[in-house]
Amino acid sequence: MEKQRIVILGGGFGGVYTASELMRRLGHIHKAKADVEVILVSEENYITFQPLLPEVVSGAVEQLHVISPIRRIAPGVTLYVRKVEKIDIENKQVQLAPGLNPRSEVISYDHLVIAMGNQLAHHMVPGLFEHAIPFKYLGDALRLRNHLVQMLEEASVCKDPEERERMLTFTVAGGGFSGVECIAEMEDFLKKAVRAFPNVSRDELRIVLIQSDNRILPEMKEKLANYADKLLRRRGIEFILEHYLNEVSADRAVVLDKKTKQKSVIPTRTVVATIPTEPHPVIIDTPLEKQKGRVLVNDEMESISHPGVWSLGDCAAVPSGEGYFSPPTAQYAVRQATICAENILATILGKPRQHFKFAGLGKLASLGARCAVAEVMGFTFSGFIAWVMWRAIYVGKMPGLDRKVRVFIDWLKDFFLPRDITQLNVHDEQKVRREHLAEGQPLFHQGDFGDRLYFVVNGKVEIEVDGRIVNTTGEGDVIGEMALLAHQSRSATVRATEPTDLVSLPKDAFEQIIKYVPGAADAMAEIHESRLRHNAEEQAAADQTSS
Amino acid sequence: MEKQRIVILGGGFGGVYTASELMRRLGHIHKAKADVEVILVSEENYITFQPLLPEVVSGAVEQLHVISPIRRIAPGVTLYVRKVEKIDIENKQVQLAPGLNPRSEVISYDHLVIAMGNQLAHHMVPGLFEHAIPFKYLGDALRLRNHLVQMLEEASVCKDPEERERMLTFTVAGGGFSGVECIAEMEDFLKKAVRAFPNVSRDELRIVLIQSDNRILPEMKEKLANYADKLLRRRGIEFILEHYLNEVSADRAVVLDKKTKQKSVIPTRTVVATIPTEPHPVIIDTPLEKQKGRVLVNDEMESISHPGVWSLGDCAAVPSGEGYFSPPTAQYAVRQATICAENILATILGKPRQHFKFAGLGKLASLGARCAVAEVMGFTFSGFIAWVMWRAIYVGKMPGLDRKVRVFIDWLKDFFLPRDITQLNVHDEQKVRREHLAEGQPLFHQGDFGDRLYFVVNGKVEIEVDGRIVNTTGEGDVIGEMALLAHQSRSATVRATEPTDLVSLPKDAFEQIIKYVPGAADAMAEIHESRLRHNAEEQAAADQTSS
Repeated sequence: MEKQRIVILGGGFGGVYTASELMRRLGHIHKAKADVEVILVSEENYITFQPLLPEVVSGAVEQLHVISPIRRIAPGVTLYVRKVEKIDIENKQVQLAPGLNPRSEVISYDHLVIAMGNQLAHHMVPGLFEHAIPFKYLGDALRLRNHLVQMLEEASVCKDPEERERMLTFTVAGGGFSGVECIAEMEDFLKKAVRAFPNVSRDELRIVLIQSDNRILPEMKEKLANYADKLLRRRGIEFILEHYLNEVSADRAVVLDKKTKQKSVIPTRTVVATIPTEPHPVIIDTPLEKQKGRVLVNDEMESISHPGVWSLGDCAAVPSGEGYFSPPTAQYAVRQATICAENILATILGKPRQHFKFAGLGKLASLGARCAVAEVMGFTFSGFIAWVMWRAIYVGKMPGLDRKVRVFIDWLKDFFLPRDITQLNVHDEQKVRREHLAEGQPLFHQGDFGDRLYFVVNGKVEIEVDGRIVNTTGEGDVIGEMALLAHQSRSATVRATEPTDLVSLPKDAFEQIIKYVPGAADAMAEIHESRLRHNAEEQAAADQTSS
Repeated sequence: MEKQRIVILGGGFGGVYTASELMRRLGHIHKAKADVEVILVSEENYITFQPLLPEVVSGAVEQLHVISPIRRIAPGVTLYVRKVEKIDIENKQVQLAPGLNPRSEVISYDHLVIAMGNQLAHHMVPGLFEHAIPFKYLGDALRLRNHLVQMLEEASVCKDPEERERMLTFTVAGGGFSGVECIAEMEDFLKKAVRAFPNVSRDELRIVLIQSDNRILPEMKEKLANYADKLLRRRGIEFILEHYLNEVSADRAVVLDKKTKQKSVIPTRTVVATIPTEPHPVIIDTPLEKQKGRVLVNDEMESISHPGVWSLGDCAAVPSGEGYFSPPTAQYAVRQATICAENILATILGKPRQHFKFAGLGKLASLGARCAVAEVMGFTFSGFIAWVMWRAIYVGKMPGLDRKVRVFIDWLKDFFLPRDITQLNVHDEQKVRREHLAEGQPLFHQGDFGDRLYFVVNGKVEIEVDGRIVNTTGEGDVIGEMALLAHQSRSATVRATEPTDLVSLPKDAFEQIIKYVPGAADAMAEIHESRLRHNAEEQAAADQTSS
């Protein structure tokens, strides 16, 4: 019998538990019967336990405790810590992005398991990619936590009242489980952290949830959603219901009323986005039959169009056996993984397959500050009891005994130690950055420090000197080179007159490019001179008018 | 009486404890007697407890527990989380780098306290800035830890034996406290983590310390240093004594024999640098009288050339009262801070000043795996007893009760839970990067994936196609645009023929620049064409020769 290779794509619950089940079962099968190699491709070497992510934001759980090393959950699996570049169904191979060495790797398979989950659909909301903080991976939770502390730090030394309001307004888009749990823990953290900032008062904090539905937690029974709604409102969280997130920029969130189609602006420097989501783009490019972008499989977890390709979890449309497709939750993914692993081995060994059927065990949402809502086996619970259940169930579900112990100790500590307010900077300002400006939004002000060079990708901006518009410019133009070339502060205010996208370079990179890219210095000098000439002419015209 | 403003620069032990002492004492002084505002400028909102940093690498202590929020140590202080751009002694003001808003801030002072510590002297070793991992802040320890896990992950799927050797060789430069403690914890972590990687054996790990002196721990008595030396050698750590770190690149460390001046190469992808250090550059630019770059102060902590300017900690030359300058340790800085705070208030209130005199309490170095060496009050200790002392003393010294408790719990957990091997990616590959190549080092190979564009800053490289050198190029030239423009793999191997510095851009940034920088696309097309022409001519010449 030839050696069979099973390649699993994705490091979430679906992928990792399929690998874990395969390794466990292979341990019991005599090697002569099934010579199988299992390869798992994941972007990280750990699995993120998403239900506890909001607690990382508040600091109730240590950062590393919500993740678990894949090598410990699926011992013996061959793990590639890589991105997937391409799935080639026809030739039965996948292409991985390069790692430390710049060589991309091609791996062929006999069986392919696609469990790549979903991701934020950036293209659906202008500015979402550039300015919203997603909330899916541990890195996102850390970034959010540091961002919250940074806003408090900046507000504490900020003298401009409008700027201060933007810094102290925090918004979350999406009123499902993830959005509600996130905003609840944010509120819990902010109100505790603010005590360490003598210049910032708790009353100045504005915490807003944006939800398209007419209530929060549409996944749960109305009674529980109402309980959560009242509780969170009492804690000072604002709900903007029946509105879509329409546009995001560095200083605002624009929302659209579902009925009236009226837009309104929330001045804020914090937009956390849990919606909208879509399947991974490499799946879109495959010829596999799909249902709303998800890989359509039968109740054996195999693609209905391509046998030998299997799919599960959030990126697959899996019949639940109850007349509807499985919802995108870990509960379902873990059970699908067992069936998937079993059926792949059954196929290799020529045995009968199993069918997936699962009705779900229950639903839980934590509301922070020792409160939660729960639906378990048809019963509903709320408040402290639901919160204890929530903790007990999730600590029980965490993969690996050591994680259970660690999280349990964290929770004990959280009862008697103050919250942490350190701001751990992991963000690097040195990079090439994309930015989105809403209509009327300033890019920078006259007199500001000149630290970046901008290229206009699309849209329009106006240039204002001493309160007078001297120019408008748009697609393909360069902005901000004057301050960088002359090592002085910004000589003009630049403001978008319509939604505008830009790409920007930090000062260092600009200086290196000017120095080393052939022609760049000349091109810059030319732009600079024509700009100076234009400004001088404008000035002369203005002097004539005023004299 | 006019309001007096004290501005403290630096968020290490010297700066934060001066602020803390000032706030404490001001609480006891009637406001009418001394109306004083205290401003602290720090790049982070926390203080790093450096003695425990090595334990973050091994995972024995949680990341956030080695740092402590400044607002909790010095309550009431006005904190600016900013970089210092300039100290203007003449006009009695300091300029801060911009924060969230691109406006730099200028703060004037009546008393200035400079406690900015020191930093790696990057310019002294080629490639140090580009490729060595410093070891001073929490961010460094996290970066190192992730890097170690990444090396294990990459080695586990690497087929090239030479590359594998480089990935599994780990070097530390500097055999003082910081270097020795770091390598000891690295070894401890690596040998435990490697168990989770079935394809990597412990015997493949090579762990090397580079030290310029003829022994490690020159700060300690020879007997203890010898003990540490033997213990670490027994654990498999290699020592390269009487050698300087001479050059660093992505795939090697070059060391120079102090006596013979012979160079040798250690193939490695990991160089941790604890040396050489120098004071902060903004201090160098001031007219203050200095001693080897450090601000020269009297035993009252005041600049001997500029009254009203105070300095302490690692960036100051402070007479210890014992006939030598104070060594750069936290022990001294904390005691200097008390005197400094007292003397500034004495000056404002017109009272007599105090003089600094301190002989040090003792010296401790942890050797990992529950061993340490200690000199306390003239007695020497080693092994487990010294390690218990080390832990007891440091947990006692940590600022804040909650940190003491947290670290204590971490240590308890470490006795019974396995080490964490998750690789938390905080590094962003999207940035403009500087790189250093040693002589003979390849930049990329023919057939590699083309993911970056390079500019040669200085040095020389040769270009090889199918084993034949077709060109050499140097300063000001562009390399690697062909693969990026044609979306194909590298068409040539590029190798440095002398030490070479480069600046590189990621593919995304390159594409954006080509699209939006006026003239860039034309310039690139021109370079591309001339390169194609040159290659075609070379090929024709070669064909003629071989036919």
